[in-house]
Amino acid sequence: MNKTFPLATKFFLELPSPSLQDNTADLDRVVRQLKALTGWETFRIPFDRIPGWVRQIRTARYRVTASVALTPPCARLLDLEPGDTTEKCYGLAVDLGTTRIACQIWDLKSRAPVFETDFENPQTRFGPDILTRIQMAEKPEGLQTLQEAVIRELNRIIREFAASRSLAAENMLALVLAGNTTMIHLFLGLDPYALRREPYIPVVNTLEPLSARELGLTLHPRGPVYIFPNVGSYLGGDILAGIQFSRLNRQESLSLLVDVGTNAEVVLGNSQWLLGCAGAAGPALEGGVAAMGMTAGPGAIEQVRIDPRTREIRFRQIGGGRPAGICGSGLIDLVAEMFLAGLIDIRGKFNGKVKTDRWVEIDGQPAYLLVPADETQNGRPIVFTQIDLDILLRSKAAMYTILTTLVQSVGHGLDEVEQFFIAGAFGNHIDPEKAITIGLLPDLPRERFVPLGNASLQGAAELLLDYRKQEEVRRIAGTITYLEMNVNQDFMNRFSAARFLPHTDLSLFPSVPRPL
Amino acid sequence: MNKTFPLATKFFLELPSPSLQDNTADLDRVVRQLKALTGWETFRIPFDRIPGWVRQIRTARYRVTASVALTPPCARLLDLEPGDTTEKCYGLAVDLGTTRIACQIWDLKSRAPVFETDFENPQTRFGPDILTRIQMAEKPEGLQTLQEAVIRELNRIIREFAASRSLAAENMLALVLAGNTTMIHLFLGLDPYALRREPYIPVVNTLEPLSARELGLTLHPRGPVYIFPNVGSYLGGDILAGIQFSRLNRQESLSLLVDVGTNAEVVLGNSQWLLGCAGAAGPALEGGVAAMGMTAGPGAIEQVRIDPRTREIRFRQIGGGRPAGICGSGLIDLVAEMFLAGLIDIRGKFNGKVKTDRWVEIDGQPAYLLVPADETQNGRPIVFTQIDLDILLRSKAAMYTILTTLVQSVGHGLDEVEQFFIAGAFGNHIDPEKAITIGLLPDLPRERFVPLGNASLQGAAELLLDYRKQEEVRRIAGTITYLEMNVNQDFMNRFSAARFLPHTDLSLFPSVPRPL
Repeated sequence: MNKTFPLATKFFLELPSPSLQDNTADLDRVVRQLKALTGWETFRIPFDRIPGWVRQIRTARYRVTASVALTPPCARLLDLEPGDTTEKCYGLAVDLGTTRIACQIWDLKSRAPVFETDFENPQTRFGPDILTRIQMAEKPEGLQTLQEAVIRELNRIIREFAASRSLAAENMLALVLAGNTTMIHLFLGLDPYALRREPYIPVVNTLEPLSARELGLTLHPRGPVYIFPNVGSYLGGDILAGIQFSRLNRQESLSLLVDVGTNAEVVLGNSQWLLGCAGAAGPALEGGVAAMGMTAGPGAIEQVRIDPRTREIRFRQIGGGRPAGICGSGLIDLVAEMFLAGLIDIRGKFNGKVKTDRWVEIDGQPAYLLVPADETQNGRPIVFTQIDLDILLRSKAAMYTILTTLVQSVGHGLDEVEQFFIAGAFGNHIDPEKAITIGLLPDLPRERFVPLGNASLQGAAELLLDYRKQEEVRRIAGTITYLEMNVNQDFMNRFSAARFLPHTDLSLFPSVPRPL
Repeated sequence: MNKTFPLATKFFLELPSPSLQDNTADLDRVVRQLKALTGWETFRIPFDRIPGWVRQIRTARYRVTASVALTPPCARLLDLEPGDTTEKCYGLAVDLGTTRIACQIWDLKSRAPVFETDFENPQTRFGPDILTRIQMAEKPEGLQTLQEAVIRELNRIIREFAASRSLAAENMLALVLAGNTTMIHLFLGLDPYALRREPYIPVVNTLEPLSARELGLTLHPRGPVYIFPNVGSYLGGDILAGIQFSRLNRQESLSLLVDVGTNAEVVLGNSQWLLGCAGAAGPALEGGVAAMGMTAGPGAIEQVRIDPRTREIRFRQIGGGRPAGICGSGLIDLVAEMFLAGLIDIRGKFNGKVKTDRWVEIDGQPAYLLVPADETQNGRPIVFTQIDLDILLRSKAAMYTILTTLVQSVGHGLDEVEQFFIAGAFGNHIDPEKAITIGLLPDLPRERFVPLGNASLQGAAELLLDYRKQEEVRRIAGTITYLEMNVNQDFMNRFSAARFLPHTDLSLFPSVPRPL
């Protein structure tokens, strides 16, 4: 099993014709050749297809294309077509997020991406977050409705891509999907009830690859659907995909991987061990909570600069044009710059004593006017309130506390972390300098921070292109230990200290400049 | 994978309840325990059953019985039931012969046989032999009719057994079946057209175990149906089952295995190599061709003695009572005794010069009256004609020629064969002394002949009781080479010499007494 092939692939076979000297059975003749080509020992054959296939082998005079799924420990013979159809061979990689779904289509022959899309999870219209969707799943037909919403969208993408290339959907051979545990339960139509009730037990963590037909996906009906296994209710397959993509599990040195989505999922480890945990540090950091917050996209302010002397503000929004809101990285920039300009004090409170014409009052509470109404897309001002700031600081404190607790639980210090992988849109947009300034990230040499982009999607694509990653994921899943964060007094003390800017213990952040 | 278990079996699991410390997913909890019990790495789980099973696990408070099929390289989780149902666990072993079907039901927990039956293959009413059934399979719905006839009989046995024990048929977990290549094609509903047309190519030789539902068998719908692989059109899974049962493939010394059914299938080899061939030597030896021939059963003459001086005849029929015909072993006895009494000469011709009142004439041809009309079951005399004799001698000559050719093809002599296994009813009834006398079997020390009984059925039962035999059968199938008997001048010369009694070269049969 040493050659590398995609999870599903096609082989053009020119089989020797049967003779008295070589009277191997027709189907065994196909399997014999596939064994020689792939090194695999066992091929599962769909029994009901045998008569038709054998007729086809004979009619095509033993020149056929075999579609094969390589799903250890068994390969599966998916299809047999007359002649050489190896040019038509595609697969999908999907990152199934709570708010957004990212999808890539790959040409599995040339191993090139041929289509990419990113859209809102259609379940969002039934409930914006995980909890509301779990509640919806408890209503009659709720679970099915949620499941179908996602399946329908994926089928639409498959259909439109196939149509654009005049392909039969049967040429889409495989789908690899990573997501958090709840999204995977909903995708599979499995009851998520127990996921959010102590002791937080998933229905299933690890499944052998399913067939597309079992899920109602309209790729090749027997095409494999590989789903990254979950580690637990709070640590999903998306993080396993991210670990695999980061190579964290192959390195001697200590690394951290942080994936900020709905939750912050954090993994610490090296080639010997992996320790994961998750905490509710996410939404604020993605820009999902602040009143004017938005996810990173056109119109979102992603960078803010405040002159510490003049307090003059400059900002940059994604795609240019008028700003519509502020995304996670923009918020972090904003808080860091306001802090350095003295507009926010070390306790995380607006410092009204520092003069600027941007202080305003909203519902009797102090707020900072980022963009006046007449300069925004929708004519409403973009303001940043003390409440927004409190939420952000709680999130950053939670994140830093989780990181500290995790690293200390194995007797290390944060400064020993050699590589700090940051996955997600968050990782791509964040300026580590600013994140360190507010004490969200530890004060490490900057080159140790490695943004990964959508590590879950890229991990899924890697597995789609190389079946051997299944074994690696299995190993990762078998190695990783979930650390249940024990919210005890010690944790709370750390959390309180981490709510300061950047921290009560400034010796932890030697490189952060002191504010004016 | 070192523990031995049946092909399908039940495990009662008392799982630890989930807790914050052990938050493994419910189904993974089952699989984890099964892995520990069996040593297997991969369990396939039927996706559509997961929601129901997980509800059941929770309702049963984590005390469940798992039904599992051990089909390398994947185990399959067949079912989950609340509580302990391990007492109810059965399986079937089937030898699917062209004329007769033998079936055993085993208690897979106690590993004891609990029911056994043997009945005419219901396809016989559509055609007595393989060729007529292949012709029938070419007619519209012919194949389906033939398939359903056998499935229906097996379902009847399953149903009646289950009813007799007040069991649900779901407690019949597995079926293991061996048969010749044509019978297997018909059983699977696969077109047998190419089996009897050069170059004699089966549709498929080796299949991963099917599920009962795929074949319409009414045992547990997901229960594994293991079918012994074919070697080629003329060498079926029944012979593989026989090899496995004989242990021929595990011995250092040279052994032969002969299974006389519709064809004579012969295997030569040892633990290093296996060479198989098949030839049309069968029907006459089973009593199926002679005018008064019959298969071994009540009323069949199975033993004949002729006093060489008085030529007085004695015989014994199966079950006592009046004789109805003569079976294969009776025919061999008859010819040997007639030969030793001088009634048949060395060329295989009736010797009318030797006086006896049993010479009669039928249609102008000489014949030997074995039982007069008034002593038989149906009032018709049992006679043995020159035509019957010619057919028998051709069969015995074919058998001996096949044995010689096979052994010589690898540079050995028949005298080097240390063990000579004889499978089938033939092996149980035949008297090696008489078979040697007529030159059907080689003149070896008598203790080398080992009757095996229904080796195919017993091999099937062994695999039902020990899943590891699947690997052994796979090795046997991968080791065995089919020797296409090249009917050239050399073969024909040998064949002609072997038509004599016992042979033209008497030095090959030193222990055979010379006739009067």
